[in-house]
Order: sequence, then structure tokens, then C-alpha cells
Amino acid sequence: MNYLNNTDLSTVKVLNKSEFPSKSKAKDKVINSVEELIKGLDLKDNAVVSFHHHLRNGDSVLNTIMKEIQSKGIKGITLVASSLFPVHAEIIPLLKDGTIENIVTSYISGDLAKAISYGELKGKIIMQTHGGRARSILDEDIVIDVAFIASPSSDKFGNISGVNGHNSCGTLGYAIADSIKAKTVISVTDALVEYPNYPADITEDYVDQVLVIDSIGRKEGIVSGTTRVTKDPIGLKIAKDTLKVMEATGLLKDGLSFQSGAGGISLAVTDYLRDYMIENNIKGSFASGGITGYLTGMLEEGLFSSLFDVQCFDLEAIESLKRNPNHIRMSGSQYGNPRVSSVVDNLDIVILGATEIDVDFNVNVTSGADGVLMGGSGGHADTAAGSKVSIIVSKLFSSRIPLIKDRVDVITTPGTTVDVLVTERGICVNPLRTDLIESFKKANLNIIDIKDLKEYAENIMGKAKPIEKTGRIIGLSEYRDGSIIDYIYEVKK
Amino acid sequence: MNYLNNTDLSTVKVLNKSEFPSKSKAKDKVINSVEELIKGLDLKDNAVVSFHHHLRNGDSVLNTIMKEIQSKGIKGITLVASSLFPVHAEIIPLLKDGTIENIVTSYISGDLAKAISYGELKGKIIMQTHGGRARSILDEDIVIDVAFIASPSSDKFGNISGVNGHNSCGTLGYAIADSIKAKTVISVTDALVEYPNYPADITEDYVDQVLVIDSIGRKEGIVSGTTRVTKDPIGLKIAKDTLKVMEATGLLKDGLSFQSGAGGISLAVTDYLRDYMIENNIKGSFASGGITGYLTGMLEEGLFSSLFDVQCFDLEAIESLKRNPNHIRMSGSQYGNPRVSSVVDNLDIVILGATEIDVDFNVNVTSGADGVLMGGSGGHADTAAGSKVSIIVSKLFSSRIPLIKDRVDVITTPGTTVDVLVTERGICVNPLRTDLIESFKKANLNIIDIKDLKEYAENIMGKAKPIEKTGRIIGLSEYRDGSIIDYIYEVKK
Repeated sequence: MNYLNNTDLSTVKVLNKSEFPSKSKAKDKVINSVEELIKGLDLKDNAVVSFHHHLRNGDSVLNTIMKEIQSKGIKGITLVASSLFPVHAEIIPLLKDGTIENIVTSYISGDLAKAISYGELKGKIIMQTHGGRARSILDEDIVIDVAFIASPSSDKFGNISGVNGHNSCGTLGYAIADSIKAKTVISVTDALVEYPNYPADITEDYVDQVLVIDSIGRKEGIVSGTTRVTKDPIGLKIAKDTLKVMEATGLLKDGLSFQSGAGGISLAVTDYLRDYMIENNIKGSFASGGITGYLTGMLEEGLFSSLFDVQCFDLEAIESLKRNPNHIRMSGSQYGNPRVSSVVDNLDIVILGATEIDVDFNVNVTSGADGVLMGGSGGHADTAAGSKVSIIVSKLFSSRIPLIKDRVDVITTPGTTVDVLVTERGICVNPLRTDLIESFKKANLNIIDIKDLKEYAENIMGKAKPIEKTGRIIGLSEYRDGSIIDYIYEVKK
Repeated sequence: MNYLNNTDLSTVKVLNKSEFPSKSKAKDKVINSVEELIKGLDLKDNAVVSFHHHLRNGDSVLNTIMKEIQSKGIKGITLVASSLFPVHAEIIPLLKDGTIENIVTSYISGDLAKAISYGELKGKIIMQTHGGRARSILDEDIVIDVAFIASPSSDKFGNISGVNGHNSCGTLGYAIADSIKAKTVISVTDALVEYPNYPADITEDYVDQVLVIDSIGRKEGIVSGTTRVTKDPIGLKIAKDTLKVMEATGLLKDGLSFQSGAGGISLAVTDYLRDYMIENNIKGSFASGGITGYLTGMLEEGLFSSLFDVQCFDLEAIESLKRNPNHIRMSGSQYGNPRVSSVVDNLDIVILGATEIDVDFNVNVTSGADGVLMGGSGGHADTAAGSKVSIIVSKLFSSRIPLIKDRVDVITTPGTTVDVLVTERGICVNPLRTDLIESFKKANLNIIDIKDLKEYAENIMGKAKPIEKTGRIIGLSEYRDGSIIDYIYEVKK
């Protein structure tokens, strides 16, 4: 379009008759062999490849592709996977032989996580948030060479739908940024369906090739991850107290927006909230995040007007997404990208878990009591930051592991964004939230200083033993805006 | 993310406690005054601003914004408007005073078009295709400073829906590229609704500000543009013959994909096709393009499985889009961007009009018999290129203006992509399509060489008088891939 600045249009080249274009032809995108695909992609050493995690522990696409990359002798790959699950332990040998050098993810668990904590990754691991991942890709902090998009269904031109196909997993929210920004986008499917495949999470104009393989995963692993409401009486007490906390915030009224994790106590809070909303005739606005059957039920009961779904956690959610026009797909960016306004910024209340919390309210959901990687932010830091009130629910005494520490092992979510902690032995409020302290006092809630609660726990359980680290920094905990909030250290075996 | 290449992570800056981020806050995007908005945008001379045309001849957003820009004394604007209608004649003074220097559009009609043909624009006019527009924006051939997106409804964070609000217009397909690529995106609405506004054509993460004004347009102008099936017996004969042509292509079978313009004869073809499909029990795949009630009716009758809608032409289409999950929104890029695979590449048959066609099958729908601008490609060149068979339907004798010429005034669609011409005096087939000539002969269709048909018409009506031009080139006809296929000349008054 340089001719916009060309003042003499007569110098602009006009095609002559013999140069006129012929009819366009739909490009043949389908390829039936992983080997042929990877050969054709001509990946170089140190390439950046990405995957989404909507198939969770049922995914076999990442393993299949990465092993093929390994067999081609390509080294130094940066693996940008929105999350990594126990099933991905199969790629541990690729850390050792240098195929994979760096890993960028928002959640990691299982033996792969352990291997990394024990120093098997030659490069580094960057732990992001879900919203931060979208930001980093859209802003080209990370430039993806090839995005491999596991597709429960795809037509031959790459219209990808997550609700069609025998391995349906629902929305593909975390793959959207990759599909927009990766230099090459591959739909990887085991269900090649008639054109046009719809409703499409990703449309053909974003997709370069369609790889058809026998299986993208195992359905059981895709939808089995969900926890149910806890039956543990201590967990239920915490959930009940959390409802009181929520009530005391004054936010439990018409127009409520709400998110909770899929942990047992969080789901119990959701369940109590449901009863409360029915009893008090409250019509909420939206619920968001990873969506479970608990929330689709509340949508159908009219307790929420809409659901914003970045990831379906169970079959009910997938079915609802197919059927209910008020159950809406959202991308990772729309969910929590901090550079733009996003759904988390409109959340009233979020209920979150914690492995550890410290006296500054910093939360760790990245590593376990032994310092070994076993999770990650996901949307934890995004929703804590965006919500009016972020509430951590956790048992104070769990398997003899202390919840409250002087300093958490890895800071996943800065304490400056964490408002309330609810335990079975009392409720702690972040001193920054003088407004909440005021309201909770009026509501006669059992508020206790977090330092006192820590001391109380330590008097019973003793202090946490320090974790043995080697001193080598193996990774970084990246905040949603790209700043670094903590180092991740190698753990002594 | 430069720390991916940083081998010594201990040198990476980690925030200390005092630097920890505070809770994020949803940005206040709403602004209630056009003046304040434009002042705040701080537009420079030669800025590039864009608009979509989904409100068609009912749009008042473009005029409102451009007049405010004029009042600020900003000069040399490049106006990137997906289409321009008679209502936009209000901006003619802005050509004269230099506020607007260049115009990039895919369709232009009314007094503004005339003024440009008569030389009132200081810079140039670039006539694009709908798919080419999306390509040029997405590939950054055109870099838009500010996209002003007329929004039938918007919430305060910029979730824009075209189906909600009193000035609903349906899908906003032509605004998608702008929302992705413009440096600043403004939602301009007269219906500020509760958060979250859905189904959103454009979500909040793409929108920077929300301008609330009294009115974005007049409903009558938004949906009144549609023609009905022609009642002219000559037009109906052409439509009937076109159906025979379509039958002879062998494409009228299960899985048919189809598009037609909204002209009277094209709609008559659609109507005959409907009868034919019912009679022969044909289940089509999809219909696409600008969608009318004729097509939504066929969708509901099960004659097509789905509709791909880049623009709603009437109220029936808007209502269907709201209600029917098989009526699917598509962006301009998904519709016809030639750099990617797009819906037009999967079209079996497209029915298109023509103002002029020449002996090389080049079609002009950009200028009239007097050489004055009165249209543009829209999706004409995109669908002609992508479809298996493109069929031009037109009366040979219309208002004593010759249809067939040695050379059309402006080449909108290259003859290399135009396959068949159906007139009341015979059917012409592009010699490039020997396959069709073969099939049509077998079907005993009345095929005539286009040169012979031209001579026949000229014997009756005489040859077209040459149009009087000044010799000054005022613009370019840009093909979908960005190459230039013709000059546009100033017309003598």
C-alpha cells in the first residue's frame, strides 16, 4: 500500500492481461503422517513450539509431536505449553538429551515437574499465569515458531471445534493467542469432519496445516480431573465460614460475579453459595474461569445470567457449552490479560486454594512442602489481582504440613493482591484491606492476625523444616505483567 | 522474555516486597462527548482512521466522527471505510478542505462517489475487495491509527454486540480486522448495556474506549437496502436459465455451497434454486456472504446446513443470527482473505451482477456507464476467484446502456476468474473453462461467443459512447492480493 504516499499514480504498476490472476484454489492442508509434518516444518535448533492443555491428563499430542522432534535430532527447543500433566512424563528423556532446553508454562505436575525440580532441564522453566501467557504471546515477548493445536475435531481446512469429536474437551480458550501469533499453526486431530466444522473455536484463516493422527488422547484423562465437593467436615466448616465472609463483604447481591477453583473446598463454597442465592433470591451476573457442572447447573437455575468459559473441567460443562447460548467461550486474553481490560477485572469474588501462604499473604501454589514443582498459577494470580475480594480457603492442618510460613517457598501470587484467608481456626484479613477488616468486625467474624495464626499452628505442629536446595536457580515465577516475582531453585534429591 | 536467553538467572531482576503490584483495576473506558474523545486521541495530520459499514445507509457514526476531526483542523486523513453510502455525502466538504486526503474502501455510492469522480479528493481512492481489505489490514499494508467501531450495543468495557440494541445490524464481520490491528479501537454506541454484553462480535480485550452518543444511525437505513426478487419477466428468464446453467455444472447435489448477491435477479436465482433443491431433495452444505431472509428461510427448511454471515442484509437475517446456532458469524478475513484459506475457496457456485463485462470477461461493478463511481467489488472479486463456478447474471439491454464492451471502464474483477455470463439473449462461457463449455453443450444450453453477443447488442443499440475523462488518475482498483488491476480516472463534468 506504499502507493498511498505515491503522488504520481501513473507510476504505479498495473497488471497487464497476461499477468491477471487465475482462480484461487483452496490449499490442501491435510497431512497424514507426523514424520512428514515435522520434516516439512524444517524446525531449527532452538525453535519455539507451543501446545494447549485442554486435553489435560488425557493429552497425547504433546508427547507424539515432541518425540518426533527428538527423532529428527533437533535440540534446544523452548516448549511453550499452557500446562503440563503427569501424562507428559514421557518427555523427561527429551530434557536429558537436550531436545527440550526451556519450558514456559502456567502449571506443571507429575514426574516431569519432579525431574525439573531435580535439575534435569538444561535451560530454565518460566512459570506464567494464564493471563500472562496470553499477554506474553500477543505482545510477542514470546515468539512461537509452530503452535500444535490438539483439535477434538477439524475439517480439512482447519476449522477447529472443541465440542465436536469423540475426544471433545469444550472450549479451546488457551490456544487462541497461539493461533493468532504463531508463525505456523498446525491443527492436530483424530476426527477429520466435513467442512465447515462449527462452532469453531479457531477458524481456518488461522490454520496452516491439518495433521490427522490415530488419537489425540484418552477421554478419561480429559474429563476425569475434576474434584467433587469435599466431604471432609473440616473442609465443609471452612466453606461455611467462607460464605459468611462473602456475605460480610456486601457483594452477595444481584449482579454478583464469581469464580472459584475446582478444589474440594472451593466447590463446597460454590455449593453453599448456590443455596444462599436461592434462599435470598439473588440473581448473579456471571461466573467465570474453568467451568464445572456446579456452575452450569447454577446457570440453568438462573442464578447466573452467563458463564465465561476458558476451559471445561467436566462433561457437564462441555454439554452445556454445546447447548446453552449463555455459556460463552473466552480466550486466555479475554480472561486475564493484564494489558487489556479482561473478565477477571470485573470479578466480585474469587475463591482460591493455597499450598502455602506467608505472613505477607504471598501464596504458593507452584511448589509443594518439599520444594518440588507440583502446580502453578493458572488463573490464581490473575483472579486475585482482578477481583474485588480474593479469598484463600485452606485447612490450617493438612497432612502435618504447615500452611502459614514466614516466607513461602515460591511466590505464585503476590500478597498485595490476596485479601482474605479462611481456615478452620480463624479468618485472616490482609492489613491492606482496612475496609474488609471493618466490615468483618461488624459481622462478628472470627478474625485473627495471620502471624498469630502461624504461631498457633507452629505451637501444635512445630515449624516447617527448611527445604534443601542446591542453590542453582532453575527458573522464574513470572507475574502476569511480565515482571519476575520469585526465583525457582533446584531441589536436592 | 529476554531472560530465556539469559544463562545466568541470578542476574534477573526480581521485584522486592515494596515493588509488588497492587490489585488491578478495570480501566474506565467510557466517554460521553465526541469532542472530548477526539481531543484525547490527539490525532495528527495524515492519520489513518477506519469505519465499518454494517449500518449501511443508516450510519451516522462516520459523519459524526469525521466532522469532529474536521473541527479540530486535522488535515490529510486517510479514511479507511469498508463501504460508503449516500448518507456519507455529508463529508464532501471534508474532501474540499483537505481534512480527508485519501479514501480506501470496497464500495462507494451516492454524491460522495460522484464528487470523487469529479476530482474533489486531493489524494487518491483505493478500491479494495472485502477479502483484500482484511488482508491489507492484517498484513499491515495499511496501518490504522484509530478504528471507530459503530456498536449497536456495548458495555462499558467494550464488549460489542451487533444483535443487541435498538440499532441492531447483525454480524460485524468487516470490523474484526480493524479491531485486531488498529493502534486504538473505539466502540461508538448509542446503547450502553449491562456488563457482560454478549454474544460479542468484538470482546473487551480489543477495545480501548467506549464513546456513548445519542444515535449511531437510523434503523430504516440500516435494513432497508435489500432488494426483493425481481418481478421483471426478462430478469426471471435470466434467473431460470441460470438455474439450468447451474444444473449443467453438475454441482447441484448434496453438499452444495452457494452464494448470491442481493440484486433482484440474483435473488430470483436463489428462489428458483430453493424450489429445485426441494424438488430434488438436495441438502446443501453452506451458503455465505451477505445474508438475506431468503437464505435464512432455506437454512430453516434444512436446504443448507449452515450460513456463514459476514453482513446481515435484512431484519430476517438479524433475527436468525440471534436465534439459530447454525447461522454463523464470520470475519472479512475468514470470508475472503486471499493469503489464507477462506470460505470463498470452498464455494461451489456464486451468482454475481455486473454493470459492464468485456470480451475478456473482465467485470466492472465499480463505475457506471458515465464512468462515475457507483459501487465497488465488495466480495465480487473474492467470490469469483474462490468459487468453482462464478456466474454473472445481467440483462443485455438495460436502460439502453450496453452491457458488453471491448474493455470495461474499470476492471473490478479480472476476467480470468469469471466463468459464465447469463443474459436474456444467450449464455457466454469463458474460453478458459473448456470443461464447462463441454458440459453446457451436452446440456443443450444456448451458448454464444461473448464477442458475437456484443456485436448482436451493438447492432441493435449501437456502440457505447466513450466516457469523457480528464486524464488525471484519481485512484486504483486493487485486487484482493494487493496487486493493482486498473486505474480509476477523473471524469469530466
